[in-house]
Amino acid sequence: MTGRVFLVGSGPGDPELLTLKAQRVIAEADVVLHDKLLGPEILASIPEEKREDVGKRANDDSTTQEYTNQRLVDLAEDGHTVVRLKGGDPFVFGRGGEEAEFLAANGVPFEYVPGISSAIAGPGVAGIPLTHREYASSVTFVTGHEDPTKDDPPIDWEILAQTRGTLVVLMGVGTLGMYVEKLQTAGMPSETPAALVERATLPGQQVAVGTLDTIENDSTAVGIEPPAIAVIGEVAQTRDQVISFFQTSGERSQNQDDT
Amino acid sequence: MTGRVFLVGSGPGDPELLTLKAQRVIAEADVVLHDKLLGPEILASIPEEKREDVGKRANDDSTTQEYTNQRLVDLAEDGHTVVRLKGGDPFVFGRGGEEAEFLAANGVPFEYVPGISSAIAGPGVAGIPLTHREYASSVTFVTGHEDPTKDDPPIDWEILAQTRGTLVVLMGVGTLGMYVEKLQTAGMPSETPAALVERATLPGQQVAVGTLDTIENDSTAVGIEPPAIAVIGEVAQTRDQVISFFQTSGERSQNQDDT
Repeated sequence: MTGRVFLVGSGPGDPELLTLKAQRVIAEADVVLHDKLLGPEILASIPEEKREDVGKRANDDSTTQEYTNQRLVDLAEDGHTVVRLKGGDPFVFGRGGEEAEFLAANGVPFEYVPGISSAIAGPGVAGIPLTHREYASSVTFVTGHEDPTKDDPPIDWEILAQTRGTLVVLMGVGTLGMYVEKLQTAGMPSETPAALVERATLPGQQVAVGTLDTIENDSTAVGIEPPAIAVIGEVAQTRDQVISFFQTSGERSQNQDDT
Repeated sequence: MTGRVFLVGSGPGDPELLTLKAQRVIAEADVVLHDKLLGPEILASIPEEKREDVGKRANDDSTTQEYTNQRLVDLAEDGHTVVRLKGGDPFVFGRGGEEAEFLAANGVPFEYVPGISSAIAGPGVAGIPLTHREYASSVTFVTGHEDPTKDDPPIDWEILAQTRGTLVVLMGVGTLGMYVEKLQTAGMPSETPAALVERATLPGQQVAVGTLDTIENDSTAVGIEPPAIAVIGEVAQTRDQVISFFQTSGERSQNQDDT
């Protein structure tokens, strides 16, 4: 009898940001295939004998994805209940769509368990809402990880500069200079507020704030390391307005340590 | 001593899609101020004596928001631990940004607890990933709820038609005809796949699929009622490819009822 696969989002990293359902299906699973974007405490909470790391199989991404796809099918065909556990949400830049198609093409029943996307929680835990009635009635997520050898649809930064909404760039550090320049060339004002959030919801969370013009320097000054999330748009100024009374998980944990 | 406020996302409605943290802070709260987009089972799980419905105070939205803002401050100043519980995520079309600013301006400490956004989980539980390496390297969320008396920044559908990414429209039923026409006028191909998802993750979930050209008729044929989420883009075709082996919570619940 064929088993089944759960495509599960583990959220941005804080173990308390797992959903009840994610926690249940992880506990019920025979095998958990995870990637390297998982929060360390979440990873540590899964018994070692049922974990499989498919996040660092090889340098060639397509080989990795093919291996993972086939491994999911093989384990399910052996009758196992399998959790494919990802950082964030499986269907937001998580290759979950490809895995879903491969499972269906091979006749493996599967379920999707959404997770808190870092694209939302990352800015949020830095005190930055993605939309705001006064500034932004749309928000766009893109990935800054552009590899010219891949056949990804190209990102049209010129169009993105014109949405007047918030722009969130996942994996937004390495190519920061590239897209900041493209957005400015396309007419986005250089004084547009911008922020970078590293290790969102995890110990050591770091935030850099500035404008489109200054954010590269601000990022260097703070010492932001990849992976991090960039937020560009008027909403990024909210942080300065709320930060004095804003408590994050990191701060809360510190307070708890003090008691 | 001033209390504190938690701005908490309850997710799309399925009580299992609450985060562990949301569950904890709801349990610890003295008062829970909730709106009407909450899943009914989640609402029922909160003791009636600590619930306050701020979702249907008045027909005038701005009065409602002002009342809610002030109520949060008053309760916190009385020393209470207050949860402001919202459908989806507080910072995605949830007025959480405004509440954060008001709390900070009044010196009330607050924390943000992200929730699963319906903009992600809604399409997902219908078998539709928001991004896909082959079709879409960006996704944009907008709201279809446009009220000409409000001072929201206008949505530029002409620009949105050109991102080549996925477009998700929250509150996407009432104005469907309007934006479908605007997108087509702006050059989005009429054969672009499109879907509507009503009551995502809740019993009675309904999905209509078609193309930009047919989705209004498809929606009527299925009997989609607001509120529902629209997904427009190549990713919407994924549903047809995976649906035979795709299990949703609704289906799972039915199976469980059978046993």
